[in-house]
Amino acid sequence: MKLVTYLHPDNGAARVGALTSDLSEVVDLADSAEALGRGTEALTSMLALIESDEVGLDLAKAALEHGSLPGNCSLRLPLASLKLLAPVPRPTQMRDFLSFERHVQGCRTTRFKHRTQGMPDAEQQWEAFVAAGGLKLAPVWYEQPIYYKGNRMSVIGHEQDIQWPRYSKLLDYELEFGIFIGRGGKNISRENAHQHIFGFSIFNDISARDAQARESDGQLGPCKGKDFDTGNVIGPWLVTADELPDPYNLVLTARVNGEEWSSGNSGEMAHRFEDMIAHVSQDETLYPGEFFGSGTVPGGCGLELDRWLRRGDVIELEVQGLGVLRNRIV
Amino acid sequence: MKLVTYLHPDNGAARVGALTSDLSEVVDLADSAEALGRGTEALTSMLALIESDEVGLDLAKAALEHGSLPGNCSLRLPLASLKLLAPVPRPTQMRDFLSFERHVQGCRTTRFKHRTQGMPDAEQQWEAFVAAGGLKLAPVWYEQPIYYKGNRMSVIGHEQDIQWPRYSKLLDYELEFGIFIGRGGKNISRENAHQHIFGFSIFNDISARDAQARESDGQLGPCKGKDFDTGNVIGPWLVTADELPDPYNLVLTARVNGEEWSSGNSGEMAHRFEDMIAHVSQDETLYPGEFFGSGTVPGGCGLELDRWLRRGDVIELEVQGLGVLRNRIV
Repeated sequence: MKLVTYLHPDNGAARVGALTSDLSEVVDLADSAEALGRGTEALTSMLALIESDEVGLDLAKAALEHGSLPGNCSLRLPLASLKLLAPVPRPTQMRDFLSFERHVQGCRTTRFKHRTQGMPDAEQQWEAFVAAGGLKLAPVWYEQPIYYKGNRMSVIGHEQDIQWPRYSKLLDYELEFGIFIGRGGKNISRENAHQHIFGFSIFNDISARDAQARESDGQLGPCKGKDFDTGNVIGPWLVTADELPDPYNLVLTARVNGEEWSSGNSGEMAHRFEDMIAHVSQDETLYPGEFFGSGTVPGGCGLELDRWLRRGDVIELEVQGLGVLRNRIV
Repeated sequence: MKLVTYLHPDNGAARVGALTSDLSEVVDLADSAEALGRGTEALTSMLALIESDEVGLDLAKAALEHGSLPGNCSLRLPLASLKLLAPVPRPTQMRDFLSFERHVQGCRTTRFKHRTQGMPDAEQQWEAFVAAGGLKLAPVWYEQPIYYKGNRMSVIGHEQDIQWPRYSKLLDYELEFGIFIGRGGKNISRENAHQHIFGFSIFNDISARDAQARESDGQLGPCKGKDFDTGNVIGPWLVTADELPDPYNLVLTARVNGEEWSSGNSGEMAHRFEDMIAHVSQDETLYPGEFFGSGTVPGGCGLELDRWLRRGDVIELEVQGLGVLRNRIV
């Protein structure tokens, strides 16, 4: 299923829906379950649905099937007419991991070449930099997943506007995708970890690069470089895990104003979601509705490309099987 | 007022209470408001109370007064008989700041002296280290508050047991206190920031030092060094802001098994809570129930002292005006 949280056009209330098979309409799951004479408690919010685990999923499937019947058009709304929120408007907790080696190497390369540009010995400097291990990540990265916790209160969805934070001159996108934790638990083995993945969404981790660079010397991770309203974009919908049996061979693409800037493949993830779940859940309970981001794919941000966003730009992130996440910067 | 979240002895439900003036009893605020014929919606949880702002505070005060009357003993329970949770069992979001310069210097000093211990030129090495600026923090720290986001799902309260994470050999306490955000808002000026402080609590930021040291090279801030069940201890109660007019001259003390290990004063905070609120709220909305920690006071952890906790130890953090926060490690 492709699940959305949308604002009902009549009263503005946040509702949970599922897309019909042609992606043109949204079945209101609670309305449809009610029409079936079933309870609707598990369908009052996406978090309630996730917390209801298999029972909620089975109910949602039955409701989608019922609402998709030709005669039941009163249970459906045209997708194009709806305002979407992020699938889980306030994730229980957010973490973003660094799982692509070449993303870090790309950022370092661009930064180095930028700094030595025009110098007569730029080429020799570059060779010395590489020879000295300048592109090698810290050993710990090769041994375990590394993450920071994001701001769960600044999440927006598809086609909601990104507000440029006024303290920044260098705003950037990050091409990522991520999982929502379904069933909670702790000390989850790598082998069982997939049972705890409820589903997938595209993630645009908007970053104020000047603020982030300043703070990085503080050594506590990103602060205002990532923390501002509308800074975490998730959507357009949540694709349940059964629809994406292999998340490690997906093409990811970023376009700005229709022009392709970035392209990558999830197969390059050195730390997979199952590794992350096993690592984080060591003596720590994971809860339904937590979000884990993949980190940026190689070449998946302007910092690597030395190309920069401007006010009014429209960013589209597309991930195979997960749709297109589109937002304008205002 | 001193506000607690406690488990009702009859049914185990989490309830909001306020301490009587002699600190011996807890008035159940919802029961007392109901006895007064007032609505109780704002008193169903600490978060609901915080979200209700002045209206909630006025109601809580009236309820405490009513419940404290000699005849109304049915509205009170002996504090000693109650199991407390953290005042806000799941803060909306958690940040911990680095506001004491000498804490970082203390950690570096201990680490350096540990490394050079017994070397014939240890003294000269130390002098060279200091002369090279080894004790100076990154310039950005002197310019703005630096923080990381903590795990809001691993919070426990007074006298709840701390579970030693099995992947760690070096568990540590951190002597801190912090604020709960009351009224939300963004772009809050330093001058108005105090109006957004709902109240104060003691904070013990339990840290797995070996995991934290390994991860620190990853440069995204603390991960499993701070993220494990029972890793964030807040309590014993929440002292409303009106009861603590000057939070910047408080004595903080840590005792392990009754022996004093740490002592500091909040007057040394280089970044005050008002600075933090002004900094973080730049183009970012703060919400009721967010927690901001002060960071560790100088000498306020075992890492600085090179003294280490053992299973079974009882840690007590005492902060002037905020009570004593006591927990056993199991």
